[in-house]
Amino acid sequence: MRKERGLLIVLSGPSGVGKGTVRKELFSKAGTNYEYSISMTTRAPREGEVDGVDYFFKSRNEFEALIEEGGLLEHAEFVGNYYGTPLAYVNETLDAGRDVFLEIEVQGAAQIREKAPEALFIFLAPPSISELQNRLIGRGTETEEIIKMRIDTARDELEMMSLYDYVVENDEIQNACDKINAIIVAEHCRRERIEKTYLSMLRGE
Amino acid sequence: MRKERGLLIVLSGPSGVGKGTVRKELFSKAGTNYEYSISMTTRAPREGEVDGVDYFFKSRNEFEALIEEGGLLEHAEFVGNYYGTPLAYVNETLDAGRDVFLEIEVQGAAQIREKAPEALFIFLAPPSISELQNRLIGRGTETEEIIKMRIDTARDELEMMSLYDYVVENDEIQNACDKINAIIVAEHCRRERIEKTYLSMLRGE
Repeated sequence: MRKERGLLIVLSGPSGVGKGTVRKELFSKAGTNYEYSISMTTRAPREGEVDGVDYFFKSRNEFEALIEEGGLLEHAEFVGNYYGTPLAYVNETLDAGRDVFLEIEVQGAAQIREKAPEALFIFLAPPSISELQNRLIGRGTETEEIIKMRIDTARDELEMMSLYDYVVENDEIQNACDKINAIIVAEHCRRERIEKTYLSMLRGE
Repeated sequence: MRKERGLLIVLSGPSGVGKGTVRKELFSKAGTNYEYSISMTTRAPREGEVDGVDYFFKSRNEFEALIEEGGLLEHAEFVGNYYGTPLAYVNETLDAGRDVFLEIEVQGAAQIREKAPEALFIFLAPPSISELQNRLIGRGTETEEIIKMRIDTARDELEMMSLYDYVVENDEIQNACDKINAIIVAEHCRRERIEKTYLSMLRGE
Protein backbone atom coordinates (compact mmCIF):
# COMPACT_ATOMS: atom_id res chain seq x y z
CA MET A 1 0.00 0.00 0.00
CA ARG A 2 2.74 2.49 0.91
CA LYS A 3 3.93 4.40 -2.12
CA GLU A 4 6.23 6.59 -0.06
CA ARG A 5 9.64 7.75 -1.12
CA GLY A 6 12.49 5.48 -0.10
CA LEU A 7 14.48 6.08 3.05
CA LEU A 8 17.99 7.51 2.87
CA ILE A 9 20.07 5.58 5.41
CA VAL A 10 23.42 7.09 6.40
CA LEU A 11 25.93 4.90 8.26
CA SER A 12 28.90 6.80 9.56
CA GLY A 13 31.29 6.93 12.52
CA PRO A 14 34.92 7.61 13.35
CA SER A 15 37.75 6.46 11.17
CA GLY A 16 38.69 2.86 11.92
CA VAL A 17 35.43 1.92 13.64
CA GLY A 18 34.66 -0.71 11.01
CA LYS A 19 32.05 0.99 8.82
CA GLY A 20 33.25 -0.79 5.67
CA THR A 21 33.28 -4.22 7.32
CA VAL A 22 29.79 -3.79 8.72
CA ARG A 23 28.48 -2.50 5.41
CA LYS A 24 29.97 -5.47 3.53
CA GLU A 25 28.41 -7.89 6.02
CA LEU A 26 25.00 -6.21 5.65
CA PHE A 27 25.13 -6.56 1.86
CA SER A 28 26.54 -10.09 1.90
CA LYS A 29 23.12 -11.39 3.00
CA ALA A 30 20.44 -12.25 0.48
CA GLY A 31 17.24 -10.30 0.92
CA THR A 32 18.77 -6.98 1.91
CA ASN A 33 16.03 -4.66 0.76
CA TYR A 34 18.00 -1.47 0.47
CA GLU A 35 20.40 -0.41 -2.23
CA TYR A 36 24.03 0.43 -1.64
CA SER A 37 25.22 3.73 -3.01
CA ILE A 38 28.86 3.36 -3.99
CA SER A 39 31.03 6.31 -2.92
CA MET A 40 33.53 8.10 -5.08
CA THR A 41 37.09 8.75 -3.89
CA THR A 42 40.47 10.03 -5.03
CA ARG A 43 42.40 7.79 -2.63
CA ALA A 44 44.33 4.83 -4.02
CA PRO A 45 42.55 1.46 -3.94
CA ARG A 46 43.61 -0.77 -1.01
CA GLU A 47 44.52 -4.36 -1.76
CA GLY A 48 41.50 -6.25 -3.01
CA GLU A 49 39.37 -3.17 -3.58
CA VAL A 50 37.63 -3.03 -6.94
CA ASP A 51 36.59 0.07 -8.90
CA GLY A 52 32.80 0.28 -9.16
CA VAL A 53 32.33 -2.19 -6.30
CA ASP A 54 34.08 -0.74 -3.25
CA TYR A 55 34.39 2.79 -4.61
CA PHE A 56 34.45 4.66 -7.85
CA PHE A 57 38.13 5.61 -7.97
CA LYS A 58 38.67 8.98 -9.65
CA SER A 59 41.46 11.50 -10.20
CA ARG A 60 41.40 14.83 -8.34
CA ASN A 61 40.56 16.61 -11.59
CA GLU A 62 37.59 14.37 -12.32
CA PHE A 63 36.35 14.72 -8.73
CA GLU A 64 36.65 18.50 -8.69
CA ALA A 65 34.75 18.72 -11.97
CA LEU A 66 31.84 16.84 -10.39
CA ILE A 67 31.84 19.17 -7.36
CA GLU A 68 31.61 22.12 -9.77
CA GLU A 69 28.59 20.63 -11.56
CA GLY A 70 26.73 19.97 -8.27
CA GLY A 71 26.80 16.26 -9.01
CA LEU A 72 27.56 15.18 -5.43
CA LEU A 73 25.15 14.83 -2.49
CA GLU A 74 28.09 15.38 -0.15
CA HIS A 75 31.82 15.36 -0.36
CA ALA A 76 34.70 15.73 2.05
CA GLU A 77 38.45 15.87 2.01
CA PHE A 78 39.93 13.42 4.48
CA VAL A 79 43.62 12.74 5.07
CA GLY A 80 44.39 14.39 1.76
CA ASN A 81 41.80 12.58 -0.34
CA TYR A 82 38.31 13.38 -1.55
CA TYR A 83 35.32 11.17 -0.77
CA GLY A 84 31.82 11.85 -2.08
CA THR A 85 28.38 10.51 -2.99
CA PRO A 86 27.12 10.78 -6.58
CA LEU A 87 23.71 12.48 -6.39
CA ALA A 88 21.82 11.10 -9.41
CA TYR A 89 21.75 7.45 -8.31
CA VAL A 90 20.52 8.36 -4.82
CA ASN A 91 17.61 10.48 -6.08
CA GLU A 92 16.48 8.01 -8.72
CA THR A 93 16.44 5.12 -6.26
CA LEU A 94 14.60 7.06 -3.53
CA ASP A 95 12.03 8.31 -6.06
CA ALA A 96 11.38 4.71 -7.09
CA GLY A 97 10.44 4.00 -3.45
CA ARG A 98 13.54 2.01 -2.58
CA ASP A 99 15.84 2.67 0.38
CA VAL A 100 19.40 3.82 -0.25
CA PHE A 101 22.24 2.96 2.11
CA LEU A 102 25.31 5.22 2.33
CA GLU A 103 28.47 4.43 4.27
CA ILE A 104 30.41 7.67 4.60
CA GLU A 105 32.81 9.72 6.73
CA VAL A 106 31.38 12.01 9.42
CA GLN A 107 32.17 15.21 7.51
CA GLY A 108 29.98 14.01 4.66
CA ALA A 109 27.22 12.88 7.03
CA ALA A 110 27.07 16.39 8.52
CA GLN A 111 26.48 17.84 5.04
CA ILE A 112 23.63 15.40 4.40
CA ARG A 113 22.11 16.26 7.79
CA GLU A 114 21.70 19.81 6.44
CA LYS A 115 20.58 18.94 2.92
CA ALA A 116 18.34 15.97 3.75
CA PRO A 117 17.26 16.21 7.41
CA GLU A 118 14.63 13.48 6.85
CA ALA A 119 17.40 10.92 6.29
CA LEU A 120 18.17 8.31 8.92
CA PHE A 121 21.54 8.81 10.62
CA ILE A 122 23.27 5.88 12.29
CA PHE A 123 26.54 6.40 14.15
CA LEU A 124 28.75 3.33 14.42
CA ALA A 125 30.72 3.68 17.66
CA PRO A 126 33.76 1.80 18.95
CA PRO A 127 33.50 -0.14 22.22
CA SER A 128 36.42 2.00 23.51
CA ILE A 129 39.14 4.43 22.39
CA SER A 130 41.88 1.83 22.89
CA GLU A 131 39.94 -0.65 20.75
CA LEU A 132 39.77 2.00 18.05
CA GLN A 133 43.54 2.53 18.23
CA ASN A 134 44.14 -1.21 17.93
CA ARG A 135 41.99 -1.39 14.84
CA LEU A 136 43.77 1.53 13.16
CA ILE A 137 47.16 -0.03 13.89
CA GLY A 138 46.00 -3.57 13.01
CA ARG A 139 44.90 -2.52 9.53
CA GLY A 140 48.63 -2.20 8.73
CA THR A 141 48.11 -0.07 5.66
CA GLU A 142 49.11 3.34 7.01
CA THR A 143 52.25 4.95 8.41
CA GLU A 144 52.62 5.81 12.13
CA GLU A 145 52.11 9.50 11.39
CA ILE A 146 48.87 8.84 9.53
CA ILE A 147 47.67 6.54 12.33
CA LYS A 148 48.22 9.31 14.91
CA MET A 149 46.38 11.76 12.69
CA ARG A 150 43.51 9.31 12.31
CA ILE A 151 43.23 8.79 16.07
CA ASP A 152 43.12 12.53 16.74
CA THR A 153 40.48 12.88 14.05
CA ALA A 154 38.53 9.93 15.51
CA ARG A 155 38.34 11.63 18.93
CA ASP A 156 36.87 14.74 17.33
CA GLU A 157 34.55 12.60 15.26
CA LEU A 158 33.16 10.87 18.36
CA GLU A 159 31.84 14.24 19.50
CA MET A 160 29.76 14.36 16.30
CA MET A 161 27.56 11.60 17.74
CA SER A 162 25.08 14.26 18.83
CA LEU A 163 24.05 14.88 15.20
CA TYR A 164 22.82 11.31 14.77
CA ASP A 165 19.49 9.58 15.34
CA TYR A 166 20.93 6.25 16.47
CA VAL A 167 24.16 4.97 17.99
CA VAL A 168 25.20 1.37 17.32
CA GLU A 169 28.16 -0.08 19.16
CA ASN A 170 30.39 -2.15 16.91
CA ASP A 171 31.26 -4.75 19.55
CA GLU A 172 30.62 -7.72 17.25
CA ILE A 173 29.94 -7.28 13.53
CA GLN A 174 26.82 -9.46 13.57
CA ASN A 175 25.37 -7.61 16.59
CA ALA A 176 25.92 -4.31 14.85
CA CYS A 177 24.31 -5.59 11.64
CA ASP A 178 21.27 -6.93 13.51
CA LYS A 179 20.79 -3.58 15.22
CA ILE A 180 21.12 -1.64 11.96
CA ASN A 181 18.55 -3.88 10.28
CA ALA A 182 16.20 -3.48 13.26
CA ILE A 183 16.55 0.31 13.06
CA ILE A 184 15.59 0.28 9.37
CA VAL A 185 12.54 -1.92 10.02
CA ALA A 186 11.49 0.31 12.93
CA GLU A 187 11.89 3.52 10.92
CA HIS A 188 9.46 2.17 8.34
CA CYS A 189 6.93 1.75 11.14
CA ARG A 190 7.28 5.32 12.43
CA ARG A 191 3.84 6.80 12.69
CA GLU A 192 4.63 10.13 11.03
CA ARG A 193 5.92 8.32 7.93
CA ILE A 194 2.86 6.18 7.31
CA GLU A 195 -0.10 7.65 9.19
CA LYS A 196 -1.64 9.62 6.34
CA THR A 197 -1.53 6.85 3.75
CA TYR A 198 -2.69 4.34 6.32
CA LEU A 199 -5.71 6.27 7.59
CA SER A 200 -6.85 7.06 4.04
CA MET A 201 -6.73 3.39 3.19
CA LEU A 202 -8.57 2.33 6.34
CA ARG A 203 -11.29 4.91 5.71
CA GLY A 204 -11.61 3.56 2.18
CA GLU A 205 -10.54 6.84 0.57
CA MET B 1 27.64 -0.41 30.30
CA ARG B 2 24.17 1.19 30.14
CA LYS B 3 22.64 1.51 33.58
CA GLU B 4 19.61 3.36 32.27
CA ARG B 5 16.06 2.93 33.44
CA GLY B 6 14.08 0.30 31.57
CA LEU B 7 11.84 1.20 28.68
CA LEU B 8 8.07 1.24 29.10
CA ILE B 9 6.61 -0.33 25.95
CA VAL B 10 2.90 0.23 25.32
CA LEU B 11 1.16 -1.93 22.71
CA SER B 12 -2.35 -0.81 21.92
CA GLY B 13 -4.79 -0.52 19.05
CA PRO B 14 -8.48 -0.87 18.29
CA SER B 15 -10.64 -3.54 19.79
CA GLY B 16 -10.40 -6.79 17.85
CA VAL B 17 -7.11 -5.99 16.11
CA GLY B 18 -5.37 -8.92 17.79
CA LYS B 19 -3.34 -7.24 20.55
CA GLY B 20 -3.69 -10.25 22.86
CA THR B 21 -2.69 -12.77 20.19
CA VAL B 22 0.38 -10.76 19.20
CA ARG B 23 1.38 -10.27 22.83
CA LYS B 24 1.07 -14.01 23.54
CA GLU B 25 3.18 -14.84 20.49
CA LEU B 26 5.86 -12.34 21.60
CA PHE B 27 6.06 -13.91 25.04
CA SER B 28 5.91 -17.50 23.79
CA LYS B 29 9.51 -17.16 22.53
CA ALA B 30 12.44 -17.87 24.80
CA GLY B 31 14.81 -14.95 25.20
CA THR B 32 12.21 -12.17 25.25
CA ASN B 33 14.08 -9.58 27.26
CA TYR B 34 11.18 -7.50 28.45
CA GLU B 35 8.70 -8.23 31.20
CA TYR B 36 4.98 -8.49 30.69
CA SER B 37 2.84 -6.41 32.99
CA ILE B 38 -0.42 -8.28 33.56
CA SER B 39 -3.49 -6.04 33.39
CA MET B 40 -6.34 -6.00 35.86
CA THR B 41 -9.95 -6.21 34.73
CA THR B 42 -13.48 -6.57 36.01
CA ARG B 43 -14.70 -8.37 32.88
CA ALA B 44 -15.46 -12.09 33.09
CA PRO B 45 -12.68 -14.46 32.01
CA ARG B 46 -13.07 -15.81 28.46
CA GLU B 47 -12.72 -19.52 27.91
CA GLY B 48 -9.18 -20.61 28.66
CA GLU B 49 -8.16 -17.38 30.37
CA VAL B 50 -6.40 -17.82 33.69
CA ASP B 51 -6.35 -15.37 36.64
CA GLY B 52 -2.84 -14.02 37.19
CA VAL B 53 -1.73 -15.12 33.72
CA ASP B 54 -4.01 -13.40 31.19
CA TYR B 55 -5.40 -10.84 33.62
CA PHE B 56 -5.91 -10.27 37.29
CA PHE B 57 -9.68 -10.66 37.47
CA LYS B 58 -11.23 -8.40 40.13
CA SER B 59 -14.66 -7.27 41.29
CA ARG B 60 -15.80 -3.70 40.64
CA ASN B 61 -15.43 -2.92 44.34
CA GLU B 62 -11.86 -4.16 44.48
CA PHE B 63 -10.98 -2.26 41.29
CA GLU B 64 -12.52 1.00 42.47
CA ALA B 65 -10.64 0.73 45.77
CA LEU B 66 -7.34 0.55 43.82
CA ILE B 67 -8.27 3.61 41.74
CA GLU B 68 -8.93 5.51 45.01
CA GLU B 69 -5.49 4.59 46.39
CA GLY B 70 -3.71 5.72 43.18
CA GLY B 71 -2.51 2.17 42.66
CA LEU B 72 -3.02 2.14 38.88
CA LEU B 73 -0.81 3.59 36.14
CA GLU B 74 -3.88 3.87 33.93
CA HIS B 75 -7.38 2.57 33.91
CA ALA B 76 -10.34 2.73 31.57
CA GLU B 77 -13.91 1.61 31.42
CA PHE B 78 -14.62 -0.23 28.19
CA VAL B 79 -17.91 -1.87 27.16
CA GLY B 80 -19.01 -1.76 30.80
CA ASN B 81 -15.85 -3.20 32.33
CA TYR B 82 -12.77 -1.73 33.98
CA TYR B 83 -9.27 -2.44 32.69
CA GLY B 84 -6.13 -1.13 34.38
CA THR B 85 -2.39 -1.47 35.01
CA PRO B 86 -1.09 -2.00 38.56
CA LEU B 87 1.54 0.72 39.13
CA ALA B 88 3.96 -0.86 41.64
CA TYR B 89 5.15 -3.70 39.42
CA VAL B 90 5.83 -1.35 36.50
CA ASN B 91 7.94 1.06 38.53
CA GLU B 92 9.97 -1.60 40.30
CA THR B 93 10.83 -3.34 37.03
CA LEU B 94 11.78 -0.13 35.20
CA ASP B 95 13.92 1.01 38.15
CA ALA B 96 15.78 -2.30 37.98
CA GLY B 97 16.70 -1.41 34.37
CA ARG B 98 14.38 -3.93 32.72
CA ASP B 99 11.84 -3.14 30.01
CA VAL B 100 8.14 -3.50 30.75
CA PHE B 101 5.62 -4.43 28.10
CA LEU B 102 1.97 -3.38 28.43
CA GLU B 103 -0.86 -4.50 26.17
CA ILE B 104 -3.78 -2.17 26.81
CA GLU B 105 -6.82 -0.45 25.32
CA VAL B 106 -6.38 2.92 23.61
CA GLN B 107 -8.08 4.87 26.40
CA GLY B 108 -5.47 3.61 28.83
CA ALA B 109 -2.63 4.29 26.41
CA ALA B 110 -3.73 7.92 26.14
CA GLN B 111 -3.47 8.26 29.93
CA ILE B 112 0.06 6.84 29.92
CA ARG B 113 1.04 9.22 27.10
CA GLU B 114 0.30 12.05 29.54
CA LYS B 115 1.86 10.51 32.64
CA ALA B 116 4.91 8.90 31.02
CA PRO B 117 5.65 10.65 27.71
CA GLU B 118 9.05 8.92 27.50
CA ALA B 119 7.30 5.57 27.03
CA LEU B 120 7.30 3.86 23.63
CA PHE B 121 3.85 3.74 22.01
CA ILE B 122 3.11 1.12 19.37
CA PHE B 123 -0.24 1.09 17.59
CA LEU B 124 -1.33 -2.28 16.21
CA ALA B 125 -3.47 -1.56 13.15
CA PRO B 126 -5.78 -3.81 11.16
CA PRO B 127 -5.09 -4.36 7.44
CA SER B 128 -8.63 -3.02 6.76
CA ILE B 129 -11.93 -2.17 8.47
CA SER B 130 -13.66 -5.21 6.99
CA GLU B 131 -10.89 -7.46 8.29
CA LEU B 132 -11.46 -5.92 11.73
CA GLN B 133 -15.20 -6.66 11.50
CA ASN B 134 -14.49 -10.26 10.52
CA ARG B 135 -12.25 -10.72 13.50
CA LEU B 136 -14.76 -9.28 15.94
CA ILE B 137 -17.50 -11.53 14.54
CA GLY B 138 -15.18 -14.53 14.29
CA ARG B 139 -14.30 -14.40 17.95
CA GLY B 140 -17.88 -15.62 18.58
CA THR B 141 -17.95 -14.59 22.20
CA GLU B 142 -20.08 -11.46 21.99
CA THR B 143 -23.66 -10.64 21.03
CA GLU B 144 -24.47 -8.77 17.81
CA GLU B 145 -25.19 -5.59 19.72
CA ILE B 146 -21.83 -5.68 21.46
CA ILE B 147 -20.06 -6.40 18.14
CA LYS B 148 -21.68 -3.31 16.58
CA MET B 149 -20.64 -1.23 19.59
CA ARG B 150 -17.09 -2.57 19.30
CA ILE B 151 -16.85 -1.72 15.60
CA ASP B 152 -18.04 1.84 16.21
CA THR B 153 -15.52 2.15 19.00
CA ALA B 154 -12.79 0.68 16.80
CA ARG B 155 -13.37 3.35 14.13
CA ASP B 156 -12.93 6.07 16.74
CA GLU B 157 -9.90 4.27 18.12
CA LEU B 158 -8.20 4.23 14.71
CA GLU B 159 -8.14 8.01 14.81
CA MET B 160 -6.04 7.77 17.99
CA MET B 161 -3.13 6.53 15.86
CA SER B 162 -1.74 10.07 15.84
CA LEU B 163 -0.77 9.77 19.52
CA TYR B 164 1.59 6.88 18.83
CA ASP B 165 5.28 6.63 17.93
CA TYR B 166 4.96 3.59 15.69
CA VAL B 167 2.25 1.86 13.66
CA VAL B 168 2.50 -1.89 13.06
CA GLU B 169 0.09 -3.53 10.67
CA ASN B 170 -1.20 -6.86 11.99
CA ASP B 171 -1.30 -8.58 8.60
CA GLU B 172 0.42 -11.75 9.84
CA ILE B 173 1.12 -12.36 13.52
CA GLN B 174 4.77 -13.23 12.96
CA ASN B 175 5.38 -10.13 10.81
CA ALA B 176 3.84 -7.96 13.48
CA CYS B 177 5.96 -9.60 16.21
CA ASP B 178 9.17 -9.18 14.17
CA LYS B 179 8.42 -5.50 13.68
CA ILE B 180 7.65 -4.94 17.35
CA ASN B 181 10.90 -6.62 18.37
CA ALA B 182 12.82 -4.52 15.82
CA ILE B 183 11.24 -1.35 17.22
CA ILE B 184 12.36 -2.25 20.75
CA VAL B 185 15.93 -2.99 19.60
CA ALA B 186 16.01 0.27 17.65
CA GLU B 187 14.70 2.34 20.57
CA HIS B 188 17.58 1.10 22.71
CA CYS B 189 19.95 2.48 20.06
CA ARG B 190 18.36 5.95 20.00
CA ARG B 191 21.10 8.49 20.42
CA GLU B 192 19.35 10.63 23.02
CA ARG B 193 18.89 7.61 25.29
CA ILE B 194 22.52 6.52 25.35
CA GLU B 195 24.71 9.40 24.23
CA LYS B 196 25.66 10.74 27.67
CA THR B 197 26.64 7.40 29.19
CA TYR B 198 28.41 6.42 26.03
CA LEU B 199 30.54 9.52 25.60
CA SER B 200 31.58 9.46 29.29
CA MET B 201 32.73 5.90 28.89
CA LEU B 202 34.62 6.59 25.67
CA ARG B 203 36.35 9.56 27.26
CA GLY B 204 37.31 7.33 30.19
CA GLU B 205 35.32 9.36 32.73
